[in-house]
Amino acid sequence: MLNFSFQNTTQIHFGEDQIKTIRKAIPKTAKVLVTYGGGSIKNNGVYDQVAQALSEHTWFEFSGIEPNPSYDTLMKSQAIIREHDIDFLLAVGGGSVVDGTKFIAAAAKFEGDDPWDFVAKGQPIKQALPIGCVLTLPATGSETNAGAVVTRDGNKLPFFSPLVRPLFAVLDPAVTLSLSDRQISNGVVDAFVHTMEQYLTYSVNGKVQDRFAEGLLLTLIEEGPKALAADSTDDLEVRGNIMWAATMALNGLIGAGVPQDWATHMIGHELTGAHGIDHARTLSIVLPAVMKVCTDAKREKLLQYAERIWNLTEGDDDTRINRAIELTEQFFETMQVPTRLSQVDLGEGDIDALIAKLTQHGMVKLGEHGVITPEVSREILVKAL
Amino acid sequence: MLNFSFQNTTQIHFGEDQIKTIRKAIPKTAKVLVTYGGGSIKNNGVYDQVAQALSEHTWFEFSGIEPNPSYDTLMKSQAIIREHDIDFLLAVGGGSVVDGTKFIAAAAKFEGDDPWDFVAKGQPIKQALPIGCVLTLPATGSETNAGAVVTRDGNKLPFFSPLVRPLFAVLDPAVTLSLSDRQISNGVVDAFVHTMEQYLTYSVNGKVQDRFAEGLLLTLIEEGPKALAADSTDDLEVRGNIMWAATMALNGLIGAGVPQDWATHMIGHELTGAHGIDHARTLSIVLPAVMKVCTDAKREKLLQYAERIWNLTEGDDDTRINRAIELTEQFFETMQVPTRLSQVDLGEGDIDALIAKLTQHGMVKLGEHGVITPEVSREILVKAL
Repeated sequence: MLNFSFQNTTQIHFGEDQIKTIRKAIPKTAKVLVTYGGGSIKNNGVYDQVAQALSEHTWFEFSGIEPNPSYDTLMKSQAIIREHDIDFLLAVGGGSVVDGTKFIAAAAKFEGDDPWDFVAKGQPIKQALPIGCVLTLPATGSETNAGAVVTRDGNKLPFFSPLVRPLFAVLDPAVTLSLSDRQISNGVVDAFVHTMEQYLTYSVNGKVQDRFAEGLLLTLIEEGPKALAADSTDDLEVRGNIMWAATMALNGLIGAGVPQDWATHMIGHELTGAHGIDHARTLSIVLPAVMKVCTDAKREKLLQYAERIWNLTEGDDDTRINRAIELTEQFFETMQVPTRLSQVDLGEGDIDALIAKLTQHGMVKLGEHGVITPEVSREILVKAL
Repeated sequence: MLNFSFQNTTQIHFGEDQIKTIRKAIPKTAKVLVTYGGGSIKNNGVYDQVAQALSEHTWFEFSGIEPNPSYDTLMKSQAIIREHDIDFLLAVGGGSVVDGTKFIAAAAKFEGDDPWDFVAKGQPIKQALPIGCVLTLPATGSETNAGAVVTRDGNKLPFFSPLVRPLFAVLDPAVTLSLSDRQISNGVVDAFVHTMEQYLTYSVNGKVQDRFAEGLLLTLIEEGPKALAADSTDDLEVRGNIMWAATMALNGLIGAGVPQDWATHMIGHELTGAHGIDHARTLSIVLPAVMKVCTDAKREKLLQYAERIWNLTEGDDDTRINRAIELTEQFFETMQVPTRLSQVDLGEGDIDALIAKLTQHGMVKLGEHGVITPEVSREILVKAL
């Protein structure tokens, strides 16, 4: 196991009817800005529950945070924050709303010229408004972690600061019952690939981390398809297991003390940035190709994955590895997401531009060994055609 | 899954040579009281590492905290705290030192007549001195949780407060290399039973919690015996896995959203209180008997445990359950701890007094269903003869 520091301070309130806990979780004297997306929370009752819980608070709202939240949209919040002297943000939505709210929180307190500089130029985040969140779509893990991804002019980039970690997160699986199949699929696949990025590297004999990661993968494989099946789309237990697995997949725990990859995500971000493909659907396309191109570097963990996740114990090493990759692709297909670039209408002719963007964004030494150069990324994209 | 709230704020610094992090983790202006046990930290170099890390701090020390720390010992710290105006406690030791330091922290700020009242009479803990810790014996999980157990006049009782949760915990597996076989055995068994208390109840379909608990059990079964084997007693990876598993076994995570038992612990506490038996050795005696007496209530989880931990898939339900209990006992024997009262020289004649103590301590409705009355506890102790 590698040395590590780990802390996750977010207070989690999990379960049905927990939105009411925000009444006590946010200081009574706070001036709250409720941030949300396109308004689905007004149709599924979540907005009303939040309004009810905040009935004794002074609050305002900022809506319209889109998937892959953009700098331009998010910056519009700053005038409202100044005007009303906002000192607490409550994000109500999925990972994009939470990520966008993290940007808003840091931007509101940023002392430099342009808040984009703490994203693109690594300027330090010294202060941020406190954040709470009500999660409506289990997927990104953003509800308890310190990272966020925002987009400007087709550049989709991450930033990190413990100051933007939510103070609390309400996880009520009941609010996910109104999600579309596509949203559920994307969430399950996102959480699955988050786990793989921290698991499928090289072994450092981190037995707890490996077992925990495997536990999340098995849970997502078992519960994901049920959430799409006609006879159990209203199953709260299934939704609860998916929600808790997605939070655990990216709260820092399974990645503490082990190497991490993230090449799939970095390559995937370019597909979203350039072509607007749903984040999870970029991951389901890129991950199988990464597994194929990086088989040698990941051999030991691929064999462990084959055995512990897919019960593959027969045949030689390569047979088991190939079968495990095949079964991963089949799982993605069951979850109704693409596994090839051709399925999202991209071809060989699109690869040059993607590689140029990766290079421009400094993503030239990706993966757990830092050896995925733009040339290897090209090989991965070709494999994904 | 049941509704739950979960938060664990402790900052963990894990790995070799991490003791030095306390230099920055404790405010420079703090007046620190370093608390420890019988002095083994002076022989294994830990005391020197701590002294080195605190070279720029003002610090004092309080030693002599014994296993199953006693009220009388712990209260001696209060004069030192008042005399030197101590405002930070650094516990350096195993679970007993950390537990004892939690009591010291709350006692120093207690405004009632007698600090024992927040243990025995449920008086509220409104303030506590901040605590950091350097763990030297992986076992109890106390390093990141909010609970502690202290003993007065043979009464061993728990208390809880988020105010006594350590701010940080240094987990350096290298410091555990000097532990005796008995200490290692006790630690592994303690962590194993902590996991079982939160796992072996009835199913609420908490898939992540179950998989995580199983991951800890498998890790302890794999690594525990290695830590005792002559050819790998210096294996840092083994020690690291045991240390991380023990922390995870009782940091609140695997128990969030699932029923919990704790009958084994409560009955075990009476064995320690009355007869001074090592805590873990009371657990290894009581747990198998609880599994036998409560088979029906725990049937579904026993079958899951049999399959996922011991790979038992052949034979009828009762055969698999009995074999799983047998294998649990064999694991304890491999870890060199007793599984019967007779092995610690106790017999049927001792049971009445134990049951009287349990009753006196209000432990009359134990277990995940609250149906383990003193009569059932008696049955359990008879089964453990």
